[in-house]
Amino acid sequence: MDLESFVRDVPNFPKEGVVFKDVTPLLKDPLAFRECILRLSEKAMKVDFNIMVAPEARGFIFAAPLAFEIGKALVPVRKPGKLPYKTKEIEYELEYGRATLQMHVDAINRGDRVLIVDDILATGGTMQAIAEMIEESGGEVVEILCLAELGFLEPRKRLSRYSVETLITY
Amino acid sequence: MDLESFVRDVPNFPKEGVVFKDVTPLLKDPLAFRECILRLSEKAMKVDFNIMVAPEARGFIFAAPLAFEIGKALVPVRKPGKLPYKTKEIEYELEYGRATLQMHVDAINRGDRVLIVDDILATGGTMQAIAEMIEESGGEVVEILCLAELGFLEPRKRLSRYSVETLITY
Repeated sequence: MDLESFVRDVPNFPKEGVVFKDVTPLLKDPLAFRECILRLSEKAMKVDFNIMVAPEARGFIFAAPLAFEIGKALVPVRKPGKLPYKTKEIEYELEYGRATLQMHVDAINRGDRVLIVDDILATGGTMQAIAEMIEESGGEVVEILCLAELGFLEPRKRLSRYSVETLITY
Repeated sequence: MDLESFVRDVPNFPKEGVVFKDVTPLLKDPLAFRECILRLSEKAMKVDFNIMVAPEARGFIFAAPLAFEIGKALVPVRKPGKLPYKTKEIEYELEYGRATLQMHVDAINRGDRVLIVDDILATGGTMQAIAEMIEESGGEVVEILCLAELGFLEPRKRLSRYSVETLITY
């Protein structure tokens, strides 16, 4: 099955000149979504890890079924003010301005082996920030797994310390 | 398995005097999360529907594995500016102020039978807004399915037009 045909190009989103990869047609097709999760599972099962970390909100859509299917712990990473318990956070650079992400303080412990899951890997900036937050908690990032990567933005350069796996490359 | 024991009370979140139901311990326990999704699946499979609608972000965590497990289309409802394609929206009252939710215009069509999924049903205000948006698109809301309901906020009163199913009642 050609998963790429279920990802829609939306021009000029979120701003002029950017072509956004819209995964909602994939979510709308039960067989394509199932195939996508099974292919991600196949990759994930090759890695020795105990915790899956996913950033809100689209990361949850791929990580949660994957955690369900292969039986791993799921840890959400969220924007400030969303997680109810005590949090730790990381501030990082975006193309314009800065952003902050939070994780519960009891989410990752020393020795945890972590797989980070998201939908689209673009510049890799958010992924790098999440990886650093996991490492500060004593966890090891054993792999970064995404549905697709925007190869032309060269996220693997920035994430060269990590193993990166994706199903689609643009 | 007592799923309730995996939901943590966090006092004074998001504001003084409120006790927030934190589902992150449930997500952290693979067996409990699996059991939770299977119990939701059991309820969902009793209903005749073709589309599952879920609001961001915690709704995605429960709806996506459910959609994967039982093979139904998944439609995300999001806050303004998050969905890339053409959207329709609904504005609704919160306890203080107003909120807006959006859905892609091609997400729901006349005749669609819809199950709405979320984690915690509180006042039911957000759920009611989502149901109205689905109905405006010509869809029928055949059931509202959540992990838990805050019975003392009486969401079923507000949602009396709909069938409501939950696994835990507080």
